[in-house]
Amino acid sequence: MTFSITILGSGAAIPTLTRNPSAHLLNLNERLFLIDCAEGTQLQLRKYKIHFQRIGHIFISHLHGDHFYGLIGLLTSFHLLGRKEELHIYGHPILEAILNAQLEASGTTLIYPLHFHPLFCEKYDMIFQNENVTVHSFPVLHSVPTCGFLFKEKNSARKIRKDVLDTIMIPFPEMSKIKNGGDYTDPEGRVYKNEELTSDPPRPRSYAYCSDTVYSESFIPYIRHCDILYHEATFMQEKVEDAHEKWHSTAMEAATIALKARVKKLVIGHFSARYDDLQPMLEEARSVFPETYLADDGAVFTI
Amino acid sequence: MTFSITILGSGAAIPTLTRNPSAHLLNLNERLFLIDCAEGTQLQLRKYKIHFQRIGHIFISHLHGDHFYGLIGLLTSFHLLGRKEELHIYGHPILEAILNAQLEASGTTLIYPLHFHPLFCEKYDMIFQNENVTVHSFPVLHSVPTCGFLFKEKNSARKIRKDVLDTIMIPFPEMSKIKNGGDYTDPEGRVYKNEELTSDPPRPRSYAYCSDTVYSESFIPYIRHCDILYHEATFMQEKVEDAHEKWHSTAMEAATIALKARVKKLVIGHFSARYDDLQPMLEEARSVFPETYLADDGAVFTI
Repeated sequence: MTFSITILGSGAAIPTLTRNPSAHLLNLNERLFLIDCAEGTQLQLRKYKIHFQRIGHIFISHLHGDHFYGLIGLLTSFHLLGRKEELHIYGHPILEAILNAQLEASGTTLIYPLHFHPLFCEKYDMIFQNENVTVHSFPVLHSVPTCGFLFKEKNSARKIRKDVLDTIMIPFPEMSKIKNGGDYTDPEGRVYKNEELTSDPPRPRSYAYCSDTVYSESFIPYIRHCDILYHEATFMQEKVEDAHEKWHSTAMEAATIALKARVKKLVIGHFSARYDDLQPMLEEARSVFPETYLADDGAVFTI
Repeated sequence: MTFSITILGSGAAIPTLTRNPSAHLLNLNERLFLIDCAEGTQLQLRKYKIHFQRIGHIFISHLHGDHFYGLIGLLTSFHLLGRKEELHIYGHPILEAILNAQLEASGTTLIYPLHFHPLFCEKYDMIFQNENVTVHSFPVLHSVPTCGFLFKEKNSARKIRKDVLDTIMIPFPEMSKIKNGGDYTDPEGRVYKNEELTSDPPRPRSYAYCSDTVYSESFIPYIRHCDILYHEATFMQEKVEDAHEKWHSTAMEAATIALKARVKKLVIGHFSARYDDLQPMLEEARSVFPETYLADDGAVFTI
């Protein structure tokens, strides 16, 4: 099952010719999820050749413009390009009013079903699930109400070992019981314990998105052990006071969260436009958490 | 005095990697005016190296997204980059409410003075003037209330001929009277008629912006004889029924308006994304009005 993240924007509030503001595209078993949608995101989707009509769910972390000003344009393009499939948006309730005001002003009645799911970012909460994945939102700490998101595969069934299938004739109806952990008794009454028959399923993969936020350990319980943590790193440590004043984090702080949460890999982004060369920022983070990577526009991370 | 237009977007509703939607930048004597502001306009301004903090006035023709979805991002960047100079926006009153809702949602209080001037697009109306120029709005015909705009230099003073200045001693206080058309009587009582002393000033230059609109001769009186007419041409003539149904024009129709209004030059734009090669569209317009040019992104037209 595909589990990959494409970075559509790695910059902070001000778009530049090399870094668009925040948007991530998550491909989970060929179902596409968009997280944040800065101005220009629809062009980034084109640039990276993502078939954007396949996006079914959009999650907006908070209502600063660099995280949602591209949403109304994307919704409009879906409409103009003849979308029929339903779309789900998760965000602060004020977002729904803003989108509706813009659609109304242009006399647009969307030709596809749009479902808005209000987010309040007050507690750890499951906001979506399908057969493969759950999505939780949780509060991070920023100047306006802001959600982090955790995308996590569901536990899959145990696998019946190939050597077992080659030697024991298991009737088909018994298969699913064994996959769910059951033992098997053959027609002669011999009992096979589940651990003789199966191997562990792959560990469920997970991706956490934490942007924007000041340094806070409050959400570590939700992101612990995840495969990829995306954590904002607007500044380097020398600007830690600016970071705190603006409710943002430094590269070193992001790395500290990654270390304490014992995640596998850290991806940092939301870089202030002041940094042309990001190598020192990467080195700063790696001095604390070696498995750190830069969220360059167009970068793809696969778990 | 500079009088030039930079095309920031030449496409219709759906942005592509080669054509941004509508926005024009007008440089009038180094004062910058922005007309329409689609999503991505602030990046186009960067791309074409325009010092965008010098924009003092923004005119929004109508509230379809491909003409204003980039405005809130531009206003926010002005703010984040420390703008102090006042900014004037001219547009439908609903636009002010939409902008305010977005600023409020992000907890932003702009640090520069923003003056909103409501436009109703019901009649020919002077909406701005300074020492060099007047700006008029007038109604064009689209599916929502839409303004055309006419930017016109003011008549400048007559020029005192150099050969006159070399032969007659004119006291300084008399100069401005002569420039304004007065005669001159020298100390001996000899009268010089104004036409002996001066030459005609340069003809005032003008630029008209008509987008979006269905074919209509109703606004020809306002754009007659202008130096550059920008008129939308979303489709070619073979799609004239689609054009009318969607309140848009064809290249041939734009050229017909240019011909009837006896303008000097026609610039066409707002091209449907269906057209990869615009040469046939240009040829169609030139078959009616030879002085037609394509509004490619980044093109500059100087009068």
